Amino acid sequence: MKDVVVKYIGRKPTLKNTILIEGLPGIGNVGKLAVEHLIESIEAKKFAEIYSKDFPPQVFINTDGTIKLVSNELFYWKAKNKKNRDLILLTGDYQGLSSSGQYELTDAILKIAERFKVTQIFTLGGYGLGKEIKEPKVLGAATSKKLVTRMKKAGVLFKENEPGGGIIGASGLLLGIGKLYGMEGVCLMGETPGYLVDPTSAKAVLKVLSNILKMKIDLSELEIKAKEIESIAQQLRDLEQMAKEKPEDLQYIG
Amino acid sequence: MKDVVVKYIGRKPTLKNTILIEGLPGIGNVGKLAVEHLIESIEAKKFAEIYSKDFPPQVFINTDGTIKLVSNELFYWKAKNKKNRDLILLTGDYQGLSSSGQYELTDAILKIAERFKVTQIFTLGGYGLGKEIKEPKVLGAATSKKLVTRMKKAGVLFKENEPGGGIIGASGLLLGIGKLYGMEGVCLMGETPGYLVDPTSAKAVLKVLSNILKMKIDLSELEIKAKEIESIAQQLRDLEQMAKEKPEDLQYIG
Amino acid sequence: MKDVVVKYIGRKPTLKNTILIEGLPGIGNVGKLAVEHLIESIEAKKFAEIYSKDFPPQVFINTDGTIKLVSNELFYWKAKNKKNRDLILLTGDYQGLSSSGQYELTDAILKIAERFKVTQIFTLGGYGLGKEIKEPKVLGAATSKKLVTRMKKAGVLFKENEPGGGIIGASGLLLGIGKLYGMEGVCLMGETPGYLVDPTSAKAVLKVLSNILKMKIDLSELEIKAKEIESIAQQLRDLEQMAKEKPEDLQYIG
Amino acid sequence: MKDVVVKYIGRKPTLKNTILIEGLPGIGNVGKLAVEHLIESIEAKKFAEIYSKDFPPQVFINTDGTIKLVSNELFYWKAKNKKNRDLILLTGDYQGLSSSGQYELTDAILKIAERFKVTQIFTLGGYGLGKEIKEPKVLGAATSKKLVTRMKKAGVLFKENEPGGGIIGASGLLLGIGKLYGMEGVCLMGETPGYLVDPTSAKAVLKVLSNILKMKIDLSELEIKAKEIESIAQQLRDLEQMAKEKPEDLQYIG
Repeated sequence: MKDVVVKYIGRKPTLKNTILIEGLPGIGNVGKLAVEHLIESIEAKKFAEIYSKDFPPQVFINTDGTIKLVSNELFYWKAKNKKNRDLILLTGDYQGLSSSGQYELTDAILKIAERFKVTQIFTLGGYGLGKEIKEPKVLGAATSKKLVTRMKKAGVLFKENEPGGGIIGASGLLLGIGKLYGMEGVCLMGETPGYLVDPTSAKAVLKVLSNILKMKIDLSELEIKAKEIESIAQQLRDLEQMAKEKPEDLQYIG
Repeated sequence: MKDVVVKYIGRKPTLKNTILIEGLPGIGNVGKLAVEHLIESIEAKKFAEIYSKDFPPQVFINTDGTIKLVSNELFYWKAKNKKNRDLILLTGDYQGLSSSGQYELTDAILKIAERFKVTQIFTLGGYGLGKEIKEPKVLGAATSKKLVTRMKKAGVLFKENEPGGGIIGASGLLLGIGKLYGMEGVCLMGETPGYLVDPTSAKAVLKVLSNILKMKIDLSELEIKAKEIESIAQQLRDLEQMAKEKPEDLQYIG
Repeated sequence: MKDVVVKYIGRKPTLKNTILIEGLPGIGNVGKLAVEHLIESIEAKKFAEIYSKDFPPQVFINTDGTIKLVSNELFYWKAKNKKNRDLILLTGDYQGLSSSGQYELTDAILKIAERFKVTQIFTLGGYGLGKEIKEPKVLGAATSKKLVTRMKKAGVLFKENEPGGGIIGASGLLLGIGKLYGMEGVCLMGETPGYLVDPTSAKAVLKVLSNILKMKIDLSELEIKAKEIESIAQQLRDLEQMAKEKPEDLQYIG
Repeated sequence: MKDVVVKYIGRKPTLKNTILIEGLPGIGNVGKLAVEHLIESIEAKKFAEIYSKDFPPQVFINTDGTIKLVSNELFYWKAKNKKNRDLILLTGDYQGLSSSGQYELTDAILKIAERFKVTQIFTLGGYGLGKEIKEPKVLGAATSKKLVTRMKKAGVLFKENEPGGGIIGASGLLLGIGKLYGMEGVCLMGETPGYLVDPTSAKAVLKVLSNILKMKIDLSELEIKAKEIESIAQQLRDLEQMAKEKPEDLQYIG
């Protein structure tokens, strides 16, 4: 069995001057939330499933009782006018489990990207702050100074020494190895507490991205999700506060 | 050395429209117990041993002092009439140790399955509840909605969001990767406390399976084993109860 | 780089009807001690070094300041008369670190063994009891019932269900995979407390082996080593006893 | 994707009778500090970047916002007169994560070394003592007795049984596997407490190396770094002392 197996679905699309947008599971699930929302709102079409020996040996069970082998998935969207560019969108259940598997997967995805004429990559993720924030900013990193300048103009924040440990996982590797493929790229990281899935941060990232891509993206559904999560977060804070004020009362609960 | 080594024993059988039934070690050892019992009761014949670099580097010592390299084993059974179908039965000492090894092994087994005309797969396992149960039910998952419907009629339970984490290991992968081979499949999971080997759960799984396969399987031996395990479980419960009631008495034991 | 690299030293020996004897690091270092002693006493000649990516990335420093890459080593000894058979002796610094690496190494060694006409394998090791023993017995396991019978006559003990977990590592794999190569084999396990290196157990194993191979092996040096270790063990026991009797006195030491 | 990817930058240099000098991250970062300082002071030129699936899946972010895939790097320096020899200098962000990856990387580097006519290797590292030292000595190990003698004359210390565990990682493997390539080599280990990065130890190593290579190396910048680190170390010692003397005062801090 090959390390990475690609299964195409239906006819392969013909794309040109394509932009690859990646959002896989990670801190606050910011990237995955953003790309999944984008796929839905622009009605992108799935054209490939990616299986890997470096994913867990696992199938999920759908609500109708059928199973689904864990995978990454590729969607495409063809530009409707000259203002926009063709897109490939990458999301999925997992990132690779091992370091070497992450390299393998990234390389396999870049080979597909090359085939479908990808010249630019956006990787989306979260930047975990470990504390509550009101208005998440979007930090960036890019493959060239020219792109850094362009991103700054689009409202992306570049802070020296942040994130301190660089970017780990697919969001980093796609840019790093993508450069070896001659592709330019940008990583957009939405600030997030990192405790819960974070639609607010995903919204901030998509806002910046829609600005860069000159695409209107309806963010209302992310706002609804954000409110749900905020309500859960508030309940957790209330519980914590209660525990601080009247610890003895809690004994009746447990 | 190849990752997976297949050693055929004797003449290779000629099979058609074959069903593969898997039962490897897992929760409550339900799958392995069920398939081993099935092999014995229908007198299936071993035709291949599978060795893998992803099994532990270990030999077992038989009671006569001879050694046995850890392996998986394949048995076959040829249908005696039109009501039944040819069977391949898979059991063994271990599942693969690593994620990637599990993918390799599953793929190697499916290649053999393809060669012996397998078109349908049943994977058997346990569904750990972490609590005692009187009458274990059999939960299912399948590769298509049509199969889900057929299994429901045969008494298999489909519960939304159960098991929550999907199916991990050979029982899941055989279905997930099997689908890529064009094989349809069903996973049957017997409810089990999961603390001890569970012949009661294995019996429940085999009952459903015999119904589906239209085969009569003598379950009396599993019932005997079930009573033995129940007696052990009762002793453990008694001991626990005693410890709760008169903890000071236990001090004379240790 | 290949997983396993074999470097031959000098002219390759011509051997026939060869016996391979393995003693690598393990419980009480019994196997390694035994084979190293055997190599020395029969003046076997090194003819190959085996390097592996599955050994630690490490060089040792010899007393003269030169370095030595960690390895396994093969020695040979040609029979001087018809009573004896040609021998290959295997020892080394490490066993493979990973399960799959152990399979790779074993397979590579068996390929060499095949080339030098090995038809029988003896693997030597320790059987850890976790308690002191006066006269270590030698337990066995073999690839055929015939060999079991022959070994019993030579004083090897075969106990049902011992060792319970079978044989793990090179001593087991060489027999298990060796069988696939058509080689017969025996594992000889010297009983050992397993706390310290155990020349007494190594001596017991070599005594049985010399009997089987009809070779006289001078064991006096192992006896000297055994006395040294016994003296160390006695000191440890004294210290432990002292600690039990007068724990308060020990406070003046630390 | 290949396990190790080499990307050449610009024109490949023509070198002869080359010496490879390695300094990768390790104890006290002694080797990396020494080689980085050497590269700067002799103005060696980067000619290759090495990427590996055995490095972490990570990119660093430069101060200008651009990213850099983690790598090892090769620099060269051509001798200006007959007294000196051509040099290749190896440094980088990481050593391989796994044992087998370290073997792979070392082998890949030696293949490059062979191509650029390397006949001798110096590997630089730290020897962690776990205690403060005033004047770090430089310990050695070499691939031949002749080299040991030559190194002793150059002021390198050879102590029996030190380091006790041999040399682990690239500094050891390059010599051990290099020997299989017919290259001779020396490991120079600067004594270091091992708690902090240690420019003092790096300076000691470079002093010995400059002596051996008959090259003048300006060490003033390492001395400045050494003073900075010494000042940090002093602050840590003061804090520790304070905590010992007046532990109750510290309670007002936390």
